[in-house]
Order: sequence, then structure tokens, then C-alpha cells
Amino acid sequence: MRGAVLYGPRDVRFEERETPKIMKPTDAVIRISATCVCGSDLWPYRGIQPMAQPTPMGHEYCGIVEEVGSAVTRIKPGQFVIGSFFASDNTCPNCQIGYQSSCQQAEFVGGAQAPLLRVPLADGTLVATRDVPSENSIPNLLALSDVMGTGWFTADAANVKPGKTVAVVGGAVGLLGVLSAKQMGAERITAMSRHETRQKLAREFGATDIVTERGDEGVERIKELTNGIGADSALECVGTQQSMMQAIQSTRRGGYVGYVGVPHGVELNVEQLFYAHEHLHGGPAPVRRFLPELIDLVWKGKINPVKGFELTLPLDQVAEGYRAMDERRAIKVLLRPTR
Amino acid sequence: MRGAVLYGPRDVRFEERETPKIMKPTDAVIRISATCVCGSDLWPYRGIQPMAQPTPMGHEYCGIVEEVGSAVTRIKPGQFVIGSFFASDNTCPNCQIGYQSSCQQAEFVGGAQAPLLRVPLADGTLVATRDVPSENSIPNLLALSDVMGTGWFTADAANVKPGKTVAVVGGAVGLLGVLSAKQMGAERITAMSRHETRQKLAREFGATDIVTERGDEGVERIKELTNGIGADSALECVGTQQSMMQAIQSTRRGGYVGYVGVPHGVELNVEQLFYAHEHLHGGPAPVRRFLPELIDLVWKGKINPVKGFELTLPLDQVAEGYRAMDERRAIKVLLRPTR
Repeated sequence: MRGAVLYGPRDVRFEERETPKIMKPTDAVIRISATCVCGSDLWPYRGIQPMAQPTPMGHEYCGIVEEVGSAVTRIKPGQFVIGSFFASDNTCPNCQIGYQSSCQQAEFVGGAQAPLLRVPLADGTLVATRDVPSENSIPNLLALSDVMGTGWFTADAANVKPGKTVAVVGGAVGLLGVLSAKQMGAERITAMSRHETRQKLAREFGATDIVTERGDEGVERIKELTNGIGADSALECVGTQQSMMQAIQSTRRGGYVGYVGVPHGVELNVEQLFYAHEHLHGGPAPVRRFLPELIDLVWKGKINPVKGFELTLPLDQVAEGYRAMDERRAIKVLLRPTR
Repeated sequence: MRGAVLYGPRDVRFEERETPKIMKPTDAVIRISATCVCGSDLWPYRGIQPMAQPTPMGHEYCGIVEEVGSAVTRIKPGQFVIGSFFASDNTCPNCQIGYQSSCQQAEFVGGAQAPLLRVPLADGTLVATRDVPSENSIPNLLALSDVMGTGWFTADAANVKPGKTVAVVGGAVGLLGVLSAKQMGAERITAMSRHETRQKLAREFGATDIVTERGDEGVERIKELTNGIGADSALECVGTQQSMMQAIQSTRRGGYVGYVGVPHGVELNVEQLFYAHEHLHGGPAPVRRFLPELIDLVWKGKINPVKGFELTLPLDQVAEGYRAMDERRAIKVLLRPTR
């Protein structure tokens, strides 16, 4: 089997790797229908996050179950399934309150940019659709695996409710944060973006306003749009010091900041936070919590998270996929294995 | 009029000050029935928080309204009233969602360690009791002005609910955090304290367990008491790096940290917070939000926040009050003006 392996900065190779197989009785092996390049893959790709060794890439996936281990009872071969980047048993105390990405047995699922993938804790991790979906739905279902699941969690963590005002900081996840906020009934949704394509998409997903300024100026514009008090909720989907501060400062007193951008060197002065009087919640999205609901929304055609969004490439062009994301020629790259 | 003025480290003087009077039509002047020394007064008293000039001290108060400004309509002379350390109009957008300590007109109320006090924005700030209370109730009502109101907010901010487990870090506010958590129905409440008197009080207020260890060891003990997962809620009532980390690390994934200790040099690494998957909320307690409910609880005898708690001194012995707090001979000092 050939799959994507990152060797170092801007060096992704599509090369022969060991074919995944059942290693534990709770495993499943799935045949990938589609996978993605994630914004977070760009951190090591750009050399900002160091890597100890060549690493099989990809953590977003959906596909058909090929084989299951002897202890797997809920998931069956032939089913179309979606899972998250963290395998979870879905039964431990952390899973039971909806934090499956903090499962006591959590295991990162890597190497999905390949035709086959081993998924640990299959019964807890995977959610099957009622039928095998149409080709058209596959990109939307794939999006639930991370980017849409994470966008949804951000809005949930930021307590978005009907009638509220929302400010959104960030790229692909941010766009789906806009979509999520819209779906949750927010009245005014401001996307903070300097990129015309993203601004257009943000509007299509439900943004009522666009702010192109960053930093203090951006915060000032959000205040102007919210009667001087700031947004009820801010969605932080980047993970830099600047984006985090922008989200915190754009939020009103007593408001909510949901943050899902993997933080890179971000430090908070608690005194500043203290007087901001905000609620802060975030972390690796517990996508598994939301999968049943989100699958249902896609199935009923109520959300279309990859509308105008993705560049689809055959899996063997994965290196071009990384380049397109890195150079901002694409917001999100989908990869489809060829048969 | 004579009142308490802090000149510098460990130098509190009870000396002649200008008698407060109505300065704006929205002011009231109240005759202090009782005031306190607050844990936060010890920061400048100990010289840890620098002061630019001699400062009239005290921000906890209750008493009888002497006089009101021409624009005051709700509050009347002769009423017994309680207010918070932040004056608030109770009508601005921040007040309306319950963050009166972030009122757009917020003004710190200082100089309460005196027989008379000017309270700005009287209609918004002060809450009157139904009658003039008995002498016995005055200490309990005074406690609502800050220490009890803040303890209650911490528990509220940490989402304490019936059946939940709670860890509490901190002194007088922490003890009332214990009382608040008990009142809110928490099942298991662990007070983290090394002081025998406080441990005993914590048990009386509703603590089911005491942890005497600090830092990593303390966190380990909380984990042992909570099936290895950590407390559902932690109440941080100190404001140091150590106490904040202790609260964060004692909390389970998906749990809640309420923090009210005024932070002194506390920095958070957001990556650590991210993977802790916690909710964080705090700030200067919006005591005004809780006053009507808390007055009702005191009036009905359901809470007795100063039980065995306070050292009461005549106001002119305020310097001894600070010393007793500083030397940990008293948890909370109440001061009563003599007539």
C-alpha cells in the first residue's frame, strides 16, 4: 500500500508503507473513501512543529469497514463509517460526559492519507451511516471527521445560542464555525478574514459581517458592530497569540470564547483575563460527541460543509495537496484514493 | 470623622478624614453598621501591591442610609442596605447579563473602614433588607458584601450542581465557597487547607474531605478522592500561580474552574489548558447579582456565613485587625464603629 509520509519541512512523499491490519481485538480496518489535508498538518509541514522521524500523515477519514477484530460488536464489515482523529472507547468517565478526545484510552489516529487505515477502539470511535452514502455526500461526511466537527465544537464551547452575536477568527475551521453558529441560531456572525475567497464563503455559510482588520483595529471593528460591548461569543480557530488575544478582546464581559486552534506558544496573563470577565473553553474537539447529530444534518441536506470549499485531488497527488494548502491556493484539500 | 488609611507596608492609621457627603445626585451616604478587613487588603498591607499614596481602606459595608442624592428614587433614608465593592448602575448591558462588577459606569467603593461612606450609583448598587435587621444578623449580612458574595460567585462560575464533586483552594473566600457549594447541592466537597482552624470550619460549612497537601501532591490526593479523574469543579480563591495551577490540575476533563483570587503575576500556558479540556471563568465577583438571593438566605437563617469565623473589633482598633489577619490569628476581621 502507498500512503503519505512527511519527512521534514515541505517534504511529503507518497510511498510504500506497511498495509494496516487488525492488531488488537478492538480494532477495525477501513478502506478510505476520502481523506483530507488539515490546517494542523501544516504546522509540521512548515517546520514550525518539529518531528522526530518520518511520519505517516492524515487524521481525517471516512470509508467502508473491511475487517473488524474479534471484540468489535457494533461496527460491521461493509458499513460506511466516520471517525475522529482521537480513537475513544466512548464508555470511560471522560467519554460519558462528552469529552471523547480526552478518553482515558484515547489514541491518535494517524496515517489516514492512504487507501487503508487501522482504527483502534472501533466500537467507540466509529459511527456508521444508515446506508452507504452517494458519491456526492462523501466530501460532506468526510468534513465531519475533523474540520466540521471542530467548527461545531468551537461554537458549542462558545455557548452560541439563538439571537446571539458571534465573532469568528480563523481559516477552514473558522468558516465551519460560521456555519455552525448560523445553524445554532446566532443572529449576527462576523467573520474576521482578509482573504476574498474566504469572505465570500463566510457570507454563504451565514456571516452577516466581515472584518478585514486584525489586532486592535479588528477588535475595534467588532465593538462597533456590537453596540460597543463586544460579541457574546468568539470562536478562536487558529492557535496563535494574536488570534487568541483577538478572540478574547472581541468578546463582551460575561461572554464566551471557544478555542480550538492548537496553541503554539500562546501565553495568557490571568490578570487581563480576570478583568475581561469571560468564559474560556476549548481543546481538541470531542468530535465523536457530535457525529450522530452532524451525520443526520448532512443526511437531511441541512448542512453542506464543503460547498465551494474543497480542492479534490487523487490521493497520489498528496504532495500537491500540501503545496496548495501551504500556498493558500486551497482552503481545504480532499484526497480520494483511486481504485 | 475618623477612618482607616493605609500609608505603606504594615502602617494602617485610624485618623481624621473628610466626612463623606453627596457629590452626585445618584449618590447615597450610609452610616456603617459593620465593615471588614478583606484578604485582598493584605496585598497592599504586606507591600506586595504597591500604593501611590496614602489610601482610605475598606470596601465591604452595610448600614443605614443617612442621605440620598436628588436622582435617587429606589433607596430611601433609614433603610438598611448592603452593597458591593463595585458601584454599578444595574441597567447597562453588562449589568443586565449579571456582570455588575463590569458595569460600564463601575466605580470602586473605597474607604468603608469608617463611620460613614459615600456610595455612588446608589439605586443600582445598594440592596435594602425588608426591615432593619437584628444586631445578630449584621455580621452575616455584612459578609454578603464581598467574602460570601465572592464565594458564591466562585461556585456559580465553577458550575457547581447537585451531586457534583468540588475542590476548593483558598482562605476565607474558599470557606464560603465550601458553604456555597454545599448550598448548591454538591455531593463531595474537598477543602484544601493546612490550617487546623480552617479545616474545622470547612467541615462545619459542608466539606466532606480535607486535603492538606499542596501542589502535585495535593492534586494527587484530589484525584484519589474522585476515582482518579479529578473534581467536576474547582474553586480558586487565592490568586497565585500555585493556587491557580492547583485548581486547574485538580479538575477533571470537561470540568469547570471558577477563579476569584485577584491574580498576582499568574501566567497560563494555553497549550496546557487546551489539553486539560476545562472551562475557565472568573473575575471580580458580580456580587450585586446575588445580593437579593443571599439576603433572603440569611434572613431565613439558611446560611450563617460568619459562624465561628470572625474576630470582631471596634473600628478604632482597625490596625490590630490588620495585624490579626496578617499573622493569621483571625480568618476575617469585622469592625464595628462605636456610637
